[in-house]
Amino acid sequence: MFSLHFTAETSSDGVVERDFTVGEVTGVLWSPASGPDRAPLVLMGHGGGTHKRWPAMTGRAHRLVKGCGFHVAVIDAPGHGGRPRTAVDEREIAAMQRAMAAGEPVGPIVVPYNAHLAERAVPEWRATLDALQELPEIGTEGPVGYFGLNMGTAIGVPLTAIEPRIVAAVFGIFWHDESLAETAGRITVPVEFVLQWDDEHIPRQSGLALFDAFASKEKTLHANAGRHKELPRFEADSAVRFFARHLGGAVTSPA
Amino acid sequence: MFSLHFTAETSSDGVVERDFTVGEVTGVLWSPASGPDRAPLVLMGHGGGTHKRWPAMTGRAHRLVKGCGFHVAVIDAPGHGGRPRTAVDEREIAAMQRAMAAGEPVGPIVVPYNAHLAERAVPEWRATLDALQELPEIGTEGPVGYFGLNMGTAIGVPLTAIEPRIVAAVFGIFWHDESLAETAGRITVPVEFVLQWDDEHIPRQSGLALFDAFASKEKTLHANAGRHKELPRFEADSAVRFFARHLGGAVTSPA
Repeated sequence: MFSLHFTAETSSDGVVERDFTVGEVTGVLWSPASGPDRAPLVLMGHGGGTHKRWPAMTGRAHRLVKGCGFHVAVIDAPGHGGRPRTAVDEREIAAMQRAMAAGEPVGPIVVPYNAHLAERAVPEWRATLDALQELPEIGTEGPVGYFGLNMGTAIGVPLTAIEPRIVAAVFGIFWHDESLAETAGRITVPVEFVLQWDDEHIPRQSGLALFDAFASKEKTLHANAGRHKELPRFEADSAVRFFARHLGGAVTSPA
Repeated sequence: MFSLHFTAETSSDGVVERDFTVGEVTGVLWSPASGPDRAPLVLMGHGGGTHKRWPAMTGRAHRLVKGCGFHVAVIDAPGHGGRPRTAVDEREIAAMQRAMAAGEPVGPIVVPYNAHLAERAVPEWRATLDALQELPEIGTEGPVGYFGLNMGTAIGVPLTAIEPRIVAAVFGIFWHDESLAETAGRITVPVEFVLQWDDEHIPRQSGLALFDAFASKEKTLHANAGRHKELPRFEADSAVRFFARHLGGAVTSPA
């Protein structure tokens, strides 16, 4: 088992931000500057081609820390955020770029490649969660949530399906395929799922079918008019309230 | 033009509740007990078989008044809440009850009957809005929202399509049909639309198709797991935040 090592710390606006490593995995932990001894933890997965400190990650983390007093952790996915790329990574990224330049569908490349990345990322997430729960301000008793769209869903669905410590999850903006849908069918915790109604990459029926696959008794679809990258900012606020409901925090600002 | 007459007034928990009539129409207006001189107005339409003071109406009104400081008005639909029924009303209600008792689909009866009710209700709503805007605490300048599910959608869609004073609307839990979809296609204001993913009366594709029909650039679908009558309570809070965003109020409690 790997331990967690903090490598840098900054603080602003009531939020402490600490870079960490767990083995070869690089991550960042956002925490309330002051608060109760222990607080729930939200794991966030970033999208393909980005990294742990992408603006969407930083923005969502600040909302969760300030709105609910939660801890929020993001790790760089394999091959992302300066982590080494394998030959498979290089080949698949090149194939995606060729498809995009040619205006061809990217789903047939993204879906299997992200499934491959998930196989590498899920054990990393579980080791990271073990290490995070060693911290006295997190501990092993508190509830854990997962929040990840795009590639963050491709990784988060198998993680949530296998990880009983995750009790609520926000997913979305990803394709249906047989294997991922089968995994989603093993998830029973509350789920909020977002999709873009006019997504130029993900066919509408594909997104709806992935939402349909979750076995959760409580699941909510939020579909917004707009293209792939036009997810409205208010969905981040909605996710904050979702985690406040399920992880037991109070939203302290009008999120 | 009819004037508005108040017929009763009570007050509790910071909310003033006044019964009113506009011609033969009976309604209720909920308002903040104290607040700014003028505030936005939300019109709410009740569902089939209920009335202006149904618990869902009272609950949503209190949320909007206390959360945003808005005025909220509900009127009894034709044939509802003690208002006289026509021979058409009696015939269609009997047909619905027969279909339900026989376990047959109710959509083929509800959809045309509610379209008929909308033809009677839309002019009533417009006269009521005229009269409400005569009140000094509402006025003609402030924005107006509409919030109605089930029959409240069947009436609210043609009302919103024809009424330029309505600048944002929450609809849902109703069937697609050609005529209603064509009317929805004339609506361009922001829309939040709810449906139940496992609705035993409204086929999933029918609800999705009605959402798809709105021409609004900003529209959001909230689809929740559950049957026709299992709309989660948190959707009322979501509607409050939707109106706070679009009518300019601040949500003052963690709604």
